[in-house]
Amino acid sequence: MIDIDEWTITGAVLKAQGAASNARFKTVMDSLVRHLHDFAREVQLTEEEWSSGIDFLTRVGEITDDKRQEFILLSDVLGLSTLVTAQRNRWPTGCTEATVFGPFFVPNAPKYDNGDDISNGATGEPCFVSGTVQGIGGELIANARMDVWQSDDKGSYDVQRPGLDHAQGRGHLTSQHDGRYHFKSIVAVPYPIPYDGPVGQMLEKLGRHPWRPAHLHFMIQAPGYETLITHVFRSGGTYLDSDAVFGVRSSLIADWKRHEPGTAPDGTRIEVPFYTLEYDFVLCSASKD
Amino acid sequence: MIDIDEWTITGAVLKAQGAASNARFKTVMDSLVRHLHDFAREVQLTEEEWSSGIDFLTRVGEITDDKRQEFILLSDVLGLSTLVTAQRNRWPTGCTEATVFGPFFVPNAPKYDNGDDISNGATGEPCFVSGTVQGIGGELIANARMDVWQSDDKGSYDVQRPGLDHAQGRGHLTSQHDGRYHFKSIVAVPYPIPYDGPVGQMLEKLGRHPWRPAHLHFMIQAPGYETLITHVFRSGGTYLDSDAVFGVRSSLIADWKRHEPGTAPDGTRIEVPFYTLEYDFVLCSASKD
Repeated sequence: MIDIDEWTITGAVLKAQGAASNARFKTVMDSLVRHLHDFAREVQLTEEEWSSGIDFLTRVGEITDDKRQEFILLSDVLGLSTLVTAQRNRWPTGCTEATVFGPFFVPNAPKYDNGDDISNGATGEPCFVSGTVQGIGGELIANARMDVWQSDDKGSYDVQRPGLDHAQGRGHLTSQHDGRYHFKSIVAVPYPIPYDGPVGQMLEKLGRHPWRPAHLHFMIQAPGYETLITHVFRSGGTYLDSDAVFGVRSSLIADWKRHEPGTAPDGTRIEVPFYTLEYDFVLCSASKD
Repeated sequence: MIDIDEWTITGAVLKAQGAASNARFKTVMDSLVRHLHDFAREVQLTEEEWSSGIDFLTRVGEITDDKRQEFILLSDVLGLSTLVTAQRNRWPTGCTEATVFGPFFVPNAPKYDNGDDISNGATGEPCFVSGTVQGIGGELIANARMDVWQSDDKGSYDVQRPGLDHAQGRGHLTSQHDGRYHFKSIVAVPYPIPYDGPVGQMLEKLGRHPWRPAHLHFMIQAPGYETLITHVFRSGGTYLDSDAVFGVRSSLIADWKRHEPGTAPDGTRIEVPFYTLEYDFVLCSASKD
C-alpha cells in the first residue's frame, strides 16, 4: 500500500474494505469503487475537474435543507431515480406503475377528509379528483393512506414559497369503506424543477431544459400491499416526451376533463370553469419476505 | 422518452445531454452517467439502498463547512484523490512527488519568516525543519511560497479544536535568496481522519481503520514551476503501509532525527529532547500550455 498509482489504487481500496462484515454492503461498495475509478480513468479526470466536482457537491449540500433536497434532484435528472424504480422486481400486470419520488415530499402533511379542499389556498383552476383504491384481485381497499402533493398554477410547491408556514396543495386522506376517495384541489401545470441551484446550473451547461409535464403526486399505503409511489400525468400537456427527470409512464397519463361553470361533483354551484380527474389505483400485494 | 426502463434510461439521459455545448464537459458527464447506471444495475441497487445513499450524501453535506470538508475526505478514503493525483501527466524523474491535498488546508494562513515557530502554541515535541527548494536542473529557487500545515501531538489540526480562533501548526513562508528554508514546529504524529461523521461511519462499516501515518503537509508555489502539493512522511512510523487515504510514496518518507537536550539548530539552548528534519524539494518546470 505504498507508491500506489492510478491502476493499483482500485485493488488497494478493495483490499482495505475486504474485512467489511456486511456482505451486501461490501458488494455495493466494491462495485461503487470500481465504477468510480473506471470513470476517473476513462475520462482522465484532472485535478481541476476533481476540484470542480468537490465544489459542486459542496454546493448541493449547502442548498439542501428540510424543504429542499438537491441530492434527490441530482439523482432524478441523472436518471438514477428512474433506473432504481424501474429495476425493482416488477409488479404483476394490472398494478398501477410506480414512478420517481421527487424532492418535494414532506412527511406529516395535514390530514383531510374525503371531499375536503387540499389546495388550502394555493391558486389554480378548481379540480375535483376521485377514484378507487383496489387490489390486483379487484378487491376494494378501505382505509388506505393516500398522501397527495402538487404544485400551484405558477408551478411551485408550497415548500418553495418563501414565508409560507403551512401546507398548500399537500395532505393525506384515507380511502372510504367502499375503497373510493375524492377530494378537491387545483389543476396541476407543467413546471421547471428548481433551477436556481447547482443542479440547475448543471442542466444549463448540459443544454437541457428543467421542465416537467403536469402531474399530481400520490403515495398510497395499505397493510398487506406494496407502497405505491407514483404520479398521475395530464394528457395532452407539454413535456410529456421530455420530462427532465424521465418519469413519464403511458399508463399514468389521464384526462383532466374541463367543465363549464355549473354544478360541481360535490353538489355546489361553481361560477368558473372547473376540471375533474378520475383515476383508479391498483395496489400490488405485499411480497412474502 | 416515455415508459423508460432500467436499460433504456442510459440512452435517454445521454440523448438529453447531447446538446451540451462544452465538448469536454459532455465527455465527462456521459461517462459519469454510464458508470453510475452500470453500478446501479450491476448491484441491482434497491430503493432502500438508494434512499440510504441520499441520506448519506445529505449528512456529508450537513457536516461540511468552512473548517471541515467531508466530501474531500470521502474522495480521499475511496481512493479517488490518489487516483487523480497519480494520473496527472507524470513529472520528470527527480521532481518531488505529489500526494493528496487532504481536507485540512486553509487559505490565507499566517505569514512567517524563516526561523519562526509555526506551531504557535500547538503542543508537541520541538522540531526544526529545514532544506532547499530547487528546480530540476539544480537551480535554487528563491521566494517560493511554502504553505505548511500539520496536526499537534494529539493528532488534531487547529481547525478541529473547538473554540480556537487562530492558526496553530499552520502558516506560510518563502524560501530565502539561496533557496533555503527553515522553521521551527512540533513533531507530526499519526492521527485518525475525522471519524465522527458519515465518512467515519462508512469506514467502520467497511471494517477499515481511519489512521494516517505521521506527516507534514506542504504546498509550494513559484513562478515558472508546477505547484507541488505533497507531504513528508516520518520514517519508521505506524500506518505507513495502511494509510487510510492511500497517500504514502516511498520517496516522501524522511528521517525525523531525535536529539538530546542541548543547543538547537537556531543556536538556542533547549532543555528537552528535540527533532530535526531536513528535506529538499525539487519542483517541476511549468508546462508550456
